[in-house]
Amino acid sequence: MGKRNLYLKNTPLEEALSIYTDAFKSILKMQYEELPVEKSLGRILKEAVYAGCSSPLFNAAAMDGIAVISTDTKGASERTPLTLKKNKDFIVVDTGDPINFPYDAVIMAEDVIEIDDDTVQIIEAATGWQHIRPIGEDIVTGEMLLPSLHKIRPIDIGVLFSGGIIKINVVKRPEIGIFPTGTEIIEPTQTPKDGDIIESNSRMFEAMVTSYGGTAYRFPPIEDDYNKIKTAIEEAVNKFDMVIVNAGSSAGTEDFTVHILRELGEVLIHGVAIKPGKPVILAIVKGKPVIGLPGYPVSAYIDFENFVKPVMSLMTGEPTSDNNVVDAVISKRMISSLKHKEYVRVKVGQVGDKLVASPLARGAGAAMSLVRADGFCVIEQNCEGVEAGEIVKVELYRSLQEIRHTIVAIGSHDLILDLISDLMSSNYPGNYLSSTHIGSMGGLMALKRGEAHIAPTHLLDEATGIYNMPYIKKMFEEPMALIKGVKRIQGLIVQKGNPLNLKDISDLKKCRYVNRQRGAGTRVLFDYKLKQAGIDSLEIPGYDRESATHMAVAALVSSGSADAGMGIFAAAKAMQLDFIEIGQEEYDFAIPVKHLKLPEVITFINILKSDEFHVCLDKFGGYEYSQSGKLCYMDEEII
Amino acid sequence: MGKRNLYLKNTPLEEALSIYTDAFKSILKMQYEELPVEKSLGRILKEAVYAGCSSPLFNAAAMDGIAVISTDTKGASERTPLTLKKNKDFIVVDTGDPINFPYDAVIMAEDVIEIDDDTVQIIEAATGWQHIRPIGEDIVTGEMLLPSLHKIRPIDIGVLFSGGIIKINVVKRPEIGIFPTGTEIIEPTQTPKDGDIIESNSRMFEAMVTSYGGTAYRFPPIEDDYNKIKTAIEEAVNKFDMVIVNAGSSAGTEDFTVHILRELGEVLIHGVAIKPGKPVILAIVKGKPVIGLPGYPVSAYIDFENFVKPVMSLMTGEPTSDNNVVDAVISKRMISSLKHKEYVRVKVGQVGDKLVASPLARGAGAAMSLVRADGFCVIEQNCEGVEAGEIVKVELYRSLQEIRHTIVAIGSHDLILDLISDLMSSNYPGNYLSSTHIGSMGGLMALKRGEAHIAPTHLLDEATGIYNMPYIKKMFEEPMALIKGVKRIQGLIVQKGNPLNLKDISDLKKCRYVNRQRGAGTRVLFDYKLKQAGIDSLEIPGYDRESATHMAVAALVSSGSADAGMGIFAAAKAMQLDFIEIGQEEYDFAIPVKHLKLPEVITFINILKSDEFHVCLDKFGGYEYSQSGKLCYMDEEII
Repeated sequence: MGKRNLYLKNTPLEEALSIYTDAFKSILKMQYEELPVEKSLGRILKEAVYAGCSSPLFNAAAMDGIAVISTDTKGASERTPLTLKKNKDFIVVDTGDPINFPYDAVIMAEDVIEIDDDTVQIIEAATGWQHIRPIGEDIVTGEMLLPSLHKIRPIDIGVLFSGGIIKINVVKRPEIGIFPTGTEIIEPTQTPKDGDIIESNSRMFEAMVTSYGGTAYRFPPIEDDYNKIKTAIEEAVNKFDMVIVNAGSSAGTEDFTVHILRELGEVLIHGVAIKPGKPVILAIVKGKPVIGLPGYPVSAYIDFENFVKPVMSLMTGEPTSDNNVVDAVISKRMISSLKHKEYVRVKVGQVGDKLVASPLARGAGAAMSLVRADGFCVIEQNCEGVEAGEIVKVELYRSLQEIRHTIVAIGSHDLILDLISDLMSSNYPGNYLSSTHIGSMGGLMALKRGEAHIAPTHLLDEATGIYNMPYIKKMFEEPMALIKGVKRIQGLIVQKGNPLNLKDISDLKKCRYVNRQRGAGTRVLFDYKLKQAGIDSLEIPGYDRESATHMAVAALVSSGSADAGMGIFAAAKAMQLDFIEIGQEEYDFAIPVKHLKLPEVITFINILKSDEFHVCLDKFGGYEYSQSGKLCYMDEEII
Repeated sequence: MGKRNLYLKNTPLEEALSIYTDAFKSILKMQYEELPVEKSLGRILKEAVYAGCSSPLFNAAAMDGIAVISTDTKGASERTPLTLKKNKDFIVVDTGDPINFPYDAVIMAEDVIEIDDDTVQIIEAATGWQHIRPIGEDIVTGEMLLPSLHKIRPIDIGVLFSGGIIKINVVKRPEIGIFPTGTEIIEPTQTPKDGDIIESNSRMFEAMVTSYGGTAYRFPPIEDDYNKIKTAIEEAVNKFDMVIVNAGSSAGTEDFTVHILRELGEVLIHGVAIKPGKPVILAIVKGKPVIGLPGYPVSAYIDFENFVKPVMSLMTGEPTSDNNVVDAVISKRMISSLKHKEYVRVKVGQVGDKLVASPLARGAGAAMSLVRADGFCVIEQNCEGVEAGEIVKVELYRSLQEIRHTIVAIGSHDLILDLISDLMSSNYPGNYLSSTHIGSMGGLMALKRGEAHIAPTHLLDEATGIYNMPYIKKMFEEPMALIKGVKRIQGLIVQKGNPLNLKDISDLKKCRYVNRQRGAGTRVLFDYKLKQAGIDSLEIPGYDRESATHMAVAALVSSGSADAGMGIFAAAKAMQLDFIEIGQEEYDFAIPVKHLKLPEVITFINILKSDEFHVCLDKFGGYEYSQSGKLCYMDEEII
């Protein structure tokens, strides 16, 4: 089996982080550089900045008008107007003009009566220093303008210049080398061969380094060669302030990184009790932090946040601000091991007055779960998990503002959900659709528990042959409606040219099938069709192999890993596969009547009715939309 | 008086904005450019992006171990172990390796018994597709990765590459020309002559344009010359997507901008009912937005936020997100005109369980009020103002997280407050001190109302000759303490060399005095000294001229605009002025006992006791710190 590095420990997160940052607190120093003020936006000040001059620089007119000597205006009144001569008794001033001795007051233009070009009259005495901005009213020489470690905003740039400062010392951006490794890793521009993996983590790290105030130097992938990787790290620690090595941090046969780092320096931590993210390596080589991040993108992301970011902040001076943590109701039971702290990606929506968190895919490889997530639900190390309906803490990374303008859809999956979401964000900026796919039945249950606004569903009532409404009538007591969605063609997705010559459902006995997950409407339909045909599910090879979406089924068929799967026409068409029609079904949206007045729901219905939506459906193929957006109420007679 | 442009209107903000943006909605189009994915951080997507390939690209081992044919493993058990031969019955795989036909299951390394280099035994059958990540598990070809107008984050860069995308179309940054105008305006690098104003607004605009997703082109100041300004604007509208002209937007004699814009195009709005920010010009020239922003920095900032930002967002695709609005108790009465919507800058602190907003300087020229502010309290157009203690809406632009770690100090001003604030942010990152200066008495009142944590105070009880504690005993019923601050020398700040040969307070009758504001401890001390000397305040020329801080008084003396003012030694020294000592006083911090346990207060006390603080005080001069940080309780006997 080869040499395996089975010595991963399970250090608790907080302990690992404090061991590692403590090792650097005395040796990692911030470095500084001088910058012109106009180039300093977003940079962190080295030290407090004090004004070099006052603002205003002189006593200045605060109004357009005339400057006068206040004591000379005594006695002016409507009855006894006072006549003043230009450039002797007064001078004309605009706002901002300097007021110098002997003048000590400004009279507004509106209060001055023009007699001729050189003569005016006033009918009220001026009090000393009226309508004059005194020197230093805004900024006084020597006053502290900004404190140490302040992050420069646009307004700060303005006051620095006003206070006579043209250069400032800021914290230098730490320079961080990023080294992807792995023989199977290829650059995104290369064409992948079997077994190749497109390198993407290092580009994500590059962007994270930039976001957190560092400068990233990303290198092309290094093959799994002990000496090549060793040489690269040795050179990098001389050049950079910190080094990130990607992949090679778990315990597989080709995972050299930990051995190399033990040879070159000291490995303080290998293995942390978090999931995803366990196989992280925290090392110190020649006084520099070297971090080995795991290959799975979600693990890598979570370890970056937990370890790279706080070490960077020792060098950047950026505060490691706490995340925005909110209480939310979790929509699904989640079991978690006592052995680790788990980061579950969740979508968060506000339904009525409660925030609801719906867990997304939990695998370390599920990068899209990070893209789709609104935050993390953290299950602590000594917790066995949470029950559906329990209140959990969620670290949000999307604003509550956005979340409040989001329709939460939980239920069956269809390609049109992504399409509607896209049309919402482009045509109605600030309105969002968030969808979680757990099947029709699960969606209706979530709706009933008040965890969603709408539930996409396509459930056939076998008794009546009617879709959806019979289920809603059975399950709900509160007033409900159905927003009609689309009719879509379901069938068997088979390989191009149908090489096995499959004709109907009974032919599936002789091929490798891939099924949808339990609770999916498509699986319900498949079971119904099996029953009609008198076929036992045990007769279908692959009946237990599950896939979560129409597109995932099509991908397995397309790759040759399965021969057939049930799904919608649009998925087969998107993958250029053949399709055997089984029937048309109605894919609609169940909604409590009370949510119909929400502006985002009105937007949603408008999109269903729009020409733009229908044009896209025609492009997808296999959809019929004559009823799209129509409302049916539970209390109405259903025909 | 010259030609004045007195025709400023008073259009309500929302009306002005909708008139102006409506004019552009059909003509301002987003422009696009193609970028490599790795350069797209923070950019806005033109259109939805669909995956070009699946991820994983193939069925892949999810564990290190061996790949087997599941049907061949049937019957394996502890009693009947199954022997498998390498490269026939199984192949060795690491996580991520491809699993190809005929293999369809992975057994974890931990569950495999090695017999020799080519032989293993297993004691449990494998089920089909176990420990295999199916092709497309994360991303399926053709699936929507990101919707239109999405802003690219680091994780998005990762999935774009994983999904086979290397280039994307993003919204082009609008190019915005910025033209400062004014004959009195000089570049920050030039040495100012009398009447010169250092140009700083355009640099603030430049940074704001960058922050909001545009590219700024800033030009050197143009003098007040009708034709020069006209030519610059004419050329600019051909070159840029938007033009900002600064100053020249009010109604002074040299305010050409509005006339030029009327000549070149159409002025839709001139004058909006907001304060600060009234004299804004919203024009359209050759289909391009041209905005004239006022010269006062706060007006310019508020107009930029209200008008430039929303027009930019038509071109950038950035959502104009609502601000974070919170409820806060206002600590001071504010009267506002019915004629305009007023933006009052406020500091915000959390004291106990309430948020408290303390108004800062309201002048349009008070740029430092923007630097110091945590948000705006907006007083609507038809509101006469708010009473102290009333609940107001505050638009925050600092995080609540930071606000919760901030000590709120309201009361008397001293230079050491800035110093402590700086030492807090540099030595205890994430802890802040926010101070508002309304005089000793006002501070104690605010403390009593629960609007501050501490009140800096230096109030002499004439009866006992004791500072501060007698006032606290008199005013408070709840348990109180005094954190001892510093002893500081108060006296008369006079011009260098003391040209008027002032010796004591009675000499002030013959000079131009500048006083502190009502409620300031220094003014109380001055009144006490006048009384002792038997002098009527009417005998002091300038007794009614008020200044808000020690440094502001020193600045007026330094400029020759006043001959003397009372203040602390450190202020005189900072401005290199002469000083006539009048006496030493005790500047301390009143605090309710319940706040003493706050971590930020403990930090504050530690700083008062620190050597670093004392070294800085020695540099300032005029301070004595032997008691600094000591606690005295109200119930103790005060000696």
